[in-house]
Amino acid sequence: MISIHWKPDKNSIVPLRRQIINYFTDKISKGQWPIGSIIPPQRDLARLFNVNRSTIVAALSELKSQGLIEGNGKSGTKIISSSILDLTKSQPDWQTYMREGIQIPNYKTIKTINDIEWDDKIIRLSSGEPSPELFPDGNMKKIVNKVSIDMNNLGYECPHGMYHLREEISKYLKAQNIDAAPSSILIVSGALQAIHLISIGLLQPGSSVFIEKPSYMYSLQILQTLGMRRLGIPMDHEGIMAKEIPKYVKKHRSSILYTIPNFQNPTGNVMSQERRKELIKICKEEKLPIIEDDVYRELWIDNPPPDSLKSLDKSGNVLYIGSMSKALSPGLRIGWIVGPDSVISHLADIKMQMDYGSSSLSQLTVAKWLSTGLYEEQVDFLRKELRIRRDIALNALNKYFSNMATWHIPQGGYYVWVKLKGKINMHKLFEEGCKSGVLLYPGYVYESNSNTNIRISYSYASHEDIEKGLHILSNIVQRLLHD
Amino acid sequence: MISIHWKPDKNSIVPLRRQIINYFTDKISKGQWPIGSIIPPQRDLARLFNVNRSTIVAALSELKSQGLIEGNGKSGTKIISSSILDLTKSQPDWQTYMREGIQIPNYKTIKTINDIEWDDKIIRLSSGEPSPELFPDGNMKKIVNKVSIDMNNLGYECPHGMYHLREEISKYLKAQNIDAAPSSILIVSGALQAIHLISIGLLQPGSSVFIEKPSYMYSLQILQTLGMRRLGIPMDHEGIMAKEIPKYVKKHRSSILYTIPNFQNPTGNVMSQERRKELIKICKEEKLPIIEDDVYRELWIDNPPPDSLKSLDKSGNVLYIGSMSKALSPGLRIGWIVGPDSVISHLADIKMQMDYGSSSLSQLTVAKWLSTGLYEEQVDFLRKELRIRRDIALNALNKYFSNMATWHIPQGGYYVWVKLKGKINMHKLFEEGCKSGVLLYPGYVYESNSNTNIRISYSYASHEDIEKGLHILSNIVQRLLHD
Repeated sequence: MISIHWKPDKNSIVPLRRQIINYFTDKISKGQWPIGSIIPPQRDLARLFNVNRSTIVAALSELKSQGLIEGNGKSGTKIISSSILDLTKSQPDWQTYMREGIQIPNYKTIKTINDIEWDDKIIRLSSGEPSPELFPDGNMKKIVNKVSIDMNNLGYECPHGMYHLREEISKYLKAQNIDAAPSSILIVSGALQAIHLISIGLLQPGSSVFIEKPSYMYSLQILQTLGMRRLGIPMDHEGIMAKEIPKYVKKHRSSILYTIPNFQNPTGNVMSQERRKELIKICKEEKLPIIEDDVYRELWIDNPPPDSLKSLDKSGNVLYIGSMSKALSPGLRIGWIVGPDSVISHLADIKMQMDYGSSSLSQLTVAKWLSTGLYEEQVDFLRKELRIRRDIALNALNKYFSNMATWHIPQGGYYVWVKLKGKINMHKLFEEGCKSGVLLYPGYVYESNSNTNIRISYSYASHEDIEKGLHILSNIVQRLLHD
Repeated sequence: MISIHWKPDKNSIVPLRRQIINYFTDKISKGQWPIGSIIPPQRDLARLFNVNRSTIVAALSELKSQGLIEGNGKSGTKIISSSILDLTKSQPDWQTYMREGIQIPNYKTIKTINDIEWDDKIIRLSSGEPSPELFPDGNMKKIVNKVSIDMNNLGYECPHGMYHLREEISKYLKAQNIDAAPSSILIVSGALQAIHLISIGLLQPGSSVFIEKPSYMYSLQILQTLGMRRLGIPMDHEGIMAKEIPKYVKKHRSSILYTIPNFQNPTGNVMSQERRKELIKICKEEKLPIIEDDVYRELWIDNPPPDSLKSLDKSGNVLYIGSMSKALSPGLRIGWIVGPDSVISHLADIKMQMDYGSSSLSQLTVAKWLSTGLYEEQVDFLRKELRIRRDIALNALNKYFSNMATWHIPQGGYYVWVKLKGKINMHKLFEEGCKSGVLLYPGYVYESNSNTNIRISYSYASHEDIEKGLHILSNIVQRLLHD
């Protein structure tokens, strides 16, 4: 679908209909909207351009008569040609290129969320990122200002990333009982890139990745794109059921385990200390490497979570992923992987092949947050604010959902995993949520065919909007439960 | 090979030998140097630790007697076990994981360059980046300072990248006769990522990519990793020989053309205006999409290059890649792709799957360079400095290489492509260059089996070092020509 960021000029002497025709013709004739592109439905165009639907109908009808488009306003209008330039004869068949590209596109639901999150009016119960309100105004400015004073010019960094930042991260991890020298640390552009690098660097088509069920990993297309399998292992209240692992390992060679032990995405679950020990023991016995995605660690509300798997790992089994995105700022795009030196060097080489390293400016900024101690301060503040937000979400859930759903109280992180008491059409819930201005992640993104779960995030929307959004959702759910 | 950033403490009362043994045992027992890792040769260790070789021999001998390592100092010493923790029984087989990972590692030559470029003493006739001397001190500080004043908090950006930056790039491109709305622009983390996104987004295993011969593309492993073919098309002094294209298209379906029309990497060649028109015409007839990598455009020394292929493209054939890395700062990691809106949206979705977007801080900074006009100023300055450096390189070539080689005078960019009059063992040249403290890119990186060409970069080394480096190299070449 074409996305449009243009509006006709209501003060112009050119009629609106003509302005729209000119805009379309221009886009088509320049090849910016290639043959085969789909034009948004008439009602969406009318809303986008802020004109009457009849104006749209008139404009499209003229374009149709010129042979530029075909189809009706309902099932979609398609660009078929440019009668002026005869583009069909000269343009590459982009639609085929896009369809046949290796990378599987994002799920439609996720694409929709990515695209409409930027609408100011929408209530984002979807976003896994801190709200702008969660930053004491000015500290980021202060830090970037310090960076501007101390910095030199910004060249490429060495493959592992800026040495000074790796030293700071090494110190930071030391305080969490993780013993990682700078040579065991690779700087990456966020945890998602870490997963990408590990997948292409250490796995092959046919490899199996054992994951929690449900898991954030189900929302990604990277493993499927590369011909790898995702195998869900059940969880109980203590976390992934470690004792199930050996039987999976026997069936599937060349595998790795991916887990989010703290405030798991989407369930909010925290793996118990006992389970961590058991998991490390079993994976060691099975020689099964572990990817520990620990990006939510700092976001505890009631009590700090148990020590990481990495801190328990004495035999180099664990690749540990951390990030600044969840507790500081996703816009910096800085995370890290800790692992055995040779594995880290290998991943560093692959990172060099993908993007020649992460932004030096972001690396300097993160190093400054850590070295000044302001990061600790920010995280303390964030925890207090998260408690308030979580409690608002829980109150609203009690008020609007207590008859229809159950949930566990998250001890930290951003999410409440809400389980409805009956099955509903989740696609419809998502769609109607969008229409009513509320975004959420339906459970099927994290667990195939789930028609009872919703992930509610309390990290981004304002206090009022958390309550309002849940109220709106409850009405939709109620209706759908009765359908 | 393990990389080591540690030195024994000469003031400690613990003997040096014992410190080294403790360091090794610690690394091995923590799994940071997993079984199968290779320890650097004895002479390198002696240099790294700044100790006598006999100390190294004694330390390794003790580690060997403990059963932790095996092998001799010449052909390589390997970590085989930890007698204390019995790691062989518990550690994942990381060597196999690394060997079997999908992504093909970088060429050994490139890895070596990436690893040792960070040594202050080395003369980098290798680097395709501006030297720190090429920045008038303070402008980057000034810009980052402005950013720190104007910025808000840094969240995720929308899939296409920061709107304001896309507007600035749109204006910037307009001045180059490229008509690109913000919706036709995708912000990426440098041109290399652009190539990556296009490859996985639009091509499939078996796809063919037509490239210049020689080409930068030969130095990348991305296409081979994905099972795609690189097909070199000959160049003459006007650029890639466009009239050869139809016969290649006939033989290879599902293909795309990749070209660097300005100051080509590695030859420095500029495609003539006539050839550009011919190329656009032929690719349009063949419906062959073009990737135009134009990262060197601003770096002209004598005259501006002809208009881009993109500016001649009226039918949406061209995906245009630009970047801030070559003319401003590679450390920002900001580039862009311009193409038909639907293709750009598709690539934006894939970018979201790879790293959720590029650093917001870098995006703000680049936008500020453009909006303040300081970018133009920087580029003007850079051109003058590049002329001086190019002329130093040409003078040194005349002085030291005139009997042994030929070359064209580059009209811009960073590179002189030097062709030796006889064949030599290029691997040996590279190796001996490293030993003598001079880094270069041998021709075989850009053209398989080339044993006559060298790429000399004059962008990074100091004026004195350009001359000195070429002098050292000429001695090595002379010797090898007589071998």
